[in-house]
Amino acid sequence: MTTGTGAGATSIDDLRVAIGPADTVARGAAVARHAGLVKPPGSLGRLEDLGVQLAAVAGRCPPPVPDSPAVVVAAADHGVHAQGVTPWPQEITTRMVELFCAGRGGVNAIARTVAARVVVLDVGCASAPADHPALRSARVRAVTADLSVAPAMSRAEAARALTAGAALATELVDGGADLLVTGDMGIGNTTASACLIAAFTGRDAATVTGSGAGAAGRTLSDKAAAVGRGLERNTADPADALGVLASLGGLEHAALVGVMLAGAARRVPVLLDGVITNAAALGAVGLHPAAVDYLIASHRSPEPGAAIALAYLGLVPLLDLGLRLGEGTGGLLAVPLVQAAARILGEMATLDDLEPPAGT
Amino acid sequence: MTTGTGAGATSIDDLRVAIGPADTVARGAAVARHAGLVKPPGSLGRLEDLGVQLAAVAGRCPPPVPDSPAVVVAAADHGVHAQGVTPWPQEITTRMVELFCAGRGGVNAIARTVAARVVVLDVGCASAPADHPALRSARVRAVTADLSVAPAMSRAEAARALTAGAALATELVDGGADLLVTGDMGIGNTTASACLIAAFTGRDAATVTGSGAGAAGRTLSDKAAAVGRGLERNTADPADALGVLASLGGLEHAALVGVMLAGAARRVPVLLDGVITNAAALGAVGLHPAAVDYLIASHRSPEPGAAIALAYLGLVPLLDLGLRLGEGTGGLLAVPLVQAAARILGEMATLDDLEPPAGT
Repeated sequence: MTTGTGAGATSIDDLRVAIGPADTVARGAAVARHAGLVKPPGSLGRLEDLGVQLAAVAGRCPPPVPDSPAVVVAAADHGVHAQGVTPWPQEITTRMVELFCAGRGGVNAIARTVAARVVVLDVGCASAPADHPALRSARVRAVTADLSVAPAMSRAEAARALTAGAALATELVDGGADLLVTGDMGIGNTTASACLIAAFTGRDAATVTGSGAGAAGRTLSDKAAAVGRGLERNTADPADALGVLASLGGLEHAALVGVMLAGAARRVPVLLDGVITNAAALGAVGLHPAAVDYLIASHRSPEPGAAIALAYLGLVPLLDLGLRLGEGTGGLLAVPLVQAAARILGEMATLDDLEPPAGT
Repeated sequence: MTTGTGAGATSIDDLRVAIGPADTVARGAAVARHAGLVKPPGSLGRLEDLGVQLAAVAGRCPPPVPDSPAVVVAAADHGVHAQGVTPWPQEITTRMVELFCAGRGGVNAIARTVAARVVVLDVGCASAPADHPALRSARVRAVTADLSVAPAMSRAEAARALTAGAALATELVDGGADLLVTGDMGIGNTTASACLIAAFTGRDAATVTGSGAGAAGRTLSDKAAAVGRGLERNTADPADALGVLASLGGLEHAALVGVMLAGAARRVPVLLDGVITNAAALGAVGLHPAAVDYLIASHRSPEPGAAIALAYLGLVPLLDLGLRLGEGTGGLLAVPLVQAAARILGEMATLDDLEPPAGT
């Protein structure tokens, strides 16, 4: 993997130093500007909130229109797959990565709709996908350990995956990306997501565990049991976000934390996708509270943990379409909403423009 | 106004003859195709329902990707304005039409986001807007009569406005538009919308009346009273949709009914916007029940009548963003969802593609 800035600028410590809260002056200017636009006050609803956030992220009002979105699909495999938590075989992760590279996944269809670049980041698929220009290889390890038995990975491994995600996001921003979208691929990763959400929010295993990509009946009860054992066997202190990621997360979660922190450090908005990215967002905000200012919740996943994570973060999703595919599909669908929110602030006339010209 | 086919092909009778139900064979093919795509069954949620509808509308699976959307903003004024139903002066309608033509309204900002063409249709603004290439003039009358006192217009006037909308939609489709979006401008038109929704669904005035573009306190109670008087003084038989439109609607409602019927006749999907277009949809479906097959509910307006109208039509909105601006803004925001739904059916790999190549 090549990066514009090198891993040094994307270490956790460097990222933490680079992140600051979004701009309150620009935020206030956007609120005031909305009030003067040629429309009833508040009549553009959530788009107005979004525009205010974009101004705060960019540090200016009106904010720039993000016309170069890029989605990072972080991919990895999970040792907890051995517990029968999903009906899908582990090999699917690598096969799907290859389909994404070939432009044939759901993420690609939606990326074409919104003219987004797709980059896939392998941080630990069980078998290495075939080389491809759209694939970045930063294989920290092949498959995590089984989190229901032992920590999924070491802190150093989690940090390496995080840095790989941050380096890729930084490279994309250096290349012109002005809106980052987070995506995931990893058979078994809703199990790890449930563990992360439980550990960060204090909720129990049964509350946060859902059917994911098709767990039902015995598979679903085995999944909830695996989440419960994971929480019992790993001491996870939510104040130690990297420790939680290492013991209960996936390599793709750690990479996505890196994408989010790099976006915040570069003052680029980051669109979350479904439950995997919602879980990762808890890690990012655990590492730096101000990171939340740069995150946009694209949609509400039906997974129970998703709503819990978003509520904990204080984020309200834009869409609620019953999406549970992941890959970044939901995040990409929200891209036009972000673009529209910026255009409204920059392009609409003001109430003053309604007055007839002087002298008429 | 020039049209490709002339008003003769867009009369109500001609439109009714041209409309048929959407294609059940293509619908079934889309359901089957979704089941074989490389994703957990149903994991693209509402996008899958939408793709199935698009296939049925187009009569083939996969459906074409609609990449040339056009929004018709139908504009007119309302005699019921005299009853103090809104804080906005009537002159605003014409001024806003001129802003739309200048590309400076909310509709224009969002149209640019989704690369949609904007055409404004004046079917009865109080004063004629200045000529502009984006403006079509089909002024049936300047301002309707006050519906709280007498019928808003004659049946012939409603039919002329409907035909003007249908002719414009037909012209746009002839010119390449493959997705029609409905929009409105008309100070006072949430009052007429409430009347239409009450008349078509049988609900009472208080239930369907909302604050619209800012009615509150005395204005809101005057508005509900005007809706109530309109329903008392006009005999509106929901089985006579044109009669209901004439007595209780606006000229822009009638024009939008024409847009919807022309879309259905040409087998082009039509995106509804907020409460004004939801009210018009009741008229369109009243004139031909199969028209509903071609309608897509883009968003849920906070106006109470909107949810009532959509439920009556059996349509479930895609977005719920608190939008209450009208103009077609919400309809345009759903354009990428429609495009994504079509691309998913046409571009995603199938589960068979997950199998390793033979011999490996």
